[in-house]
Amino acid sequence: MSSDGFRPLDEKLLVEYLKGTPSLAAKLGSQFDKLEIKEVGDGNLNFVYIVIGSSGAVVIKQALPYIRCIGESWPMTKERAYFEATTLQDHGRLCPAHVPEVYHFDREMCLIGMRYIEPPHIILRKGLIAGIEYPLLAEHISEYLARTLFYTSLLYLTTTNHKSAVAKYCGNVELCRLTEQVVFSDPYKVSEYNRWTTPYLDADAEAVREDSILKVEVAQLKSKFCERAQALIHGDLHTGSVMVTTDSTQVIDPEFAFYGPMGFDIGAFIGNLILAYFAQDGHAEKGTDRKLYKEWILKTISDTWNLFYRKFTALWDKNKDGPGEAYLPAIYNNPELQLLVQQKYMEDLFHDSLGFGAAKMIRRIVGVAHVEDFESIKEASKRADCERKALNFAKTLLKERKKFHNISEVVAAIEHLDK
Amino acid sequence: MSSDGFRPLDEKLLVEYLKGTPSLAAKLGSQFDKLEIKEVGDGNLNFVYIVIGSSGAVVIKQALPYIRCIGESWPMTKERAYFEATTLQDHGRLCPAHVPEVYHFDREMCLIGMRYIEPPHIILRKGLIAGIEYPLLAEHISEYLARTLFYTSLLYLTTTNHKSAVAKYCGNVELCRLTEQVVFSDPYKVSEYNRWTTPYLDADAEAVREDSILKVEVAQLKSKFCERAQALIHGDLHTGSVMVTTDSTQVIDPEFAFYGPMGFDIGAFIGNLILAYFAQDGHAEKGTDRKLYKEWILKTISDTWNLFYRKFTALWDKNKDGPGEAYLPAIYNNPELQLLVQQKYMEDLFHDSLGFGAAKMIRRIVGVAHVEDFESIKEASKRADCERKALNFAKTLLKERKKFHNISEVVAAIEHLDK
Repeated sequence: MSSDGFRPLDEKLLVEYLKGTPSLAAKLGSQFDKLEIKEVGDGNLNFVYIVIGSSGAVVIKQALPYIRCIGESWPMTKERAYFEATTLQDHGRLCPAHVPEVYHFDREMCLIGMRYIEPPHIILRKGLIAGIEYPLLAEHISEYLARTLFYTSLLYLTTTNHKSAVAKYCGNVELCRLTEQVVFSDPYKVSEYNRWTTPYLDADAEAVREDSILKVEVAQLKSKFCERAQALIHGDLHTGSVMVTTDSTQVIDPEFAFYGPMGFDIGAFIGNLILAYFAQDGHAEKGTDRKLYKEWILKTISDTWNLFYRKFTALWDKNKDGPGEAYLPAIYNNPELQLLVQQKYMEDLFHDSLGFGAAKMIRRIVGVAHVEDFESIKEASKRADCERKALNFAKTLLKERKKFHNISEVVAAIEHLDK
Repeated sequence: MSSDGFRPLDEKLLVEYLKGTPSLAAKLGSQFDKLEIKEVGDGNLNFVYIVIGSSGAVVIKQALPYIRCIGESWPMTKERAYFEATTLQDHGRLCPAHVPEVYHFDREMCLIGMRYIEPPHIILRKGLIAGIEYPLLAEHISEYLARTLFYTSLLYLTTTNHKSAVAKYCGNVELCRLTEQVVFSDPYKVSEYNRWTTPYLDADAEAVREDSILKVEVAQLKSKFCERAQALIHGDLHTGSVMVTTDSTQVIDPEFAFYGPMGFDIGAFIGNLILAYFAQDGHAEKGTDRKLYKEWILKTISDTWNLFYRKFTALWDKNKDGPGEAYLPAIYNNPELQLLVQQKYMEDLFHDSLGFGAAKMIRRIVGVAHVEDFESIKEASKRADCERKALNFAKTLLKERKKFHNISEVVAAIEHLDK
């Protein structure tokens, strides 16, 4: 046990901890000698235990004071558990249907006790690789995005409450710095951490590092990421942070949360769907060309943005006389003007989302952390073909994002490049 | 004396306080019975005492827990003294030539002891009304702006240091809220606080409130003001916050300081020079048509921006391998690319500055707080003519700011409107 009260938990300590914590013990029932315990974290970042008792189950997640990426160990504040817990609570209040409930948080132990998201929930990314359709995914994620982003922005909050929340989440700077490095910096320079499907993408990776226009654009997105406290964003909303069944969608792991640009969340999700799309040809086998599945992914991309647009502006309309101070009703005082400011706001948000989404795609192909969508394509040349298409699309999207007027044009551009 | 240790000072208490405070006593010399004390604050916002002793002088500024505007008393945290003191210290370290030295700060008493800016220094605004040329003004202010903004931005700071400073200054939210209201909101709606030269400008004030394009644009500036933590800005850099002689320029009163958009400071200064310009016809008398003086003001506007551009980018070049994390040298690794990112950055900053400058002009004509430049024009119809020109120019500038490519075009537009 370290001086600050932190102890990494093994199974034995875990059982003791559960016994001594009424809010968790109550969920599990009294038979502590019969608990079923499974460690499911990757062990590099966090411990994640599934604990199943006689009357219920919980997940225990404990942050460790480092992260490990391809063998390298980076020290990383375990305080991130605090920001993850408070975000799960804040976002959970705003969108309980799609955020797992927190039963317990222990700041000293960096430990969150939360809802066990039970089978048949799986990680969305794995579902996308398996070619499974989730008919409610766009509906659910757009609901999550609209509610969490709207209610933590100045469209709903007073500037007093907003600034106080911004100040609190400034404390999560180490996780922000990790994003700054791996998303906005490393892919655009020579870095020991970068990797790609070599030798096939060697020239492509080099082209990214030598693309001046791309680097000018990514600098602007990085500044926006660092400077613009627009809403409490999840901060890492890729398809590995979402658990799904055909009728449930649960957003997990908001340890990167802070007050940042909304487009970073929207873009992360859409960008990862586009990665999933371009990976499909690598998963196609005889008799399953994935053609219909690719269409479903494109439809889900469209639906996510369009439903988000509708839900977000509906929340705005509903709360236009609420506490939010960005657009005072006494100024934006007629329906045409209200429509005009919304259109402008949503247009900017759309372009931000495309830019951030593209940056998130690029870093998954030539940066440190790759995605299973591509990694699971065993044949390297086939994988490289898929990755190159995704990379080329992402570069265009990042550089030309302001030329797209709506999501249909984005989808059309994906289809065009995929021909 | 209130429970928190705060006591508003009268002259008697002041002398006691000075005796008991070595850092101030040392400046004044030992003859406390012969101190010359003058209260020069407006008494509505702060006490400001000039204290002259046998061996030197100090200014004592104490924040009061309210502000008063046209008879109305608004409660206003006296904690603003803390943000004023730390900004004087932070900016003072970065630009000692143009920021008065802080000798002493007492957080409980909300009291700053600082350099007495001695005669013949006067408030710049009064000099502009009197028609006095300040040949070094643009040189000095551009130096102040370049150094304070550059060194507190991500061009120089690590994101760790930047986020920590951002969090601290989030505490100055009450002063930010005052700006949000009086600059970005009240002028665009019916408000009991607004006033203008009536009846002459009644239609003009109404036109501001009914100008949808203007209101869409001002909303974007307001969002940027509330969300974008770009650098530690002064927050109220009009010509009343600057004291001058022909060879000295001192920036005072940064109680509105926080991490906000740089363009807000640059725009405040330039916008107030433009107000001074349009007020000149109201000050012209027989034999002094102020024509040459108006030319000097326009030259000062040009020089301020152009010198700022040169100094700011020179600091950037000099520190391109420094701690700043916005543009890593390994990415922005050749002179052409460095030039490209600087041009883009400065172009955005220019447009921000014009937008904020225009907003600051508008609020001085149809909002709560007016400027002596116009107020001192006794004849109302003449005053209204001057104000209308300034207002019309500001509206154009705010709406069309992105069409201006350089400051010469802005100056040309001023001259064109003034014909």
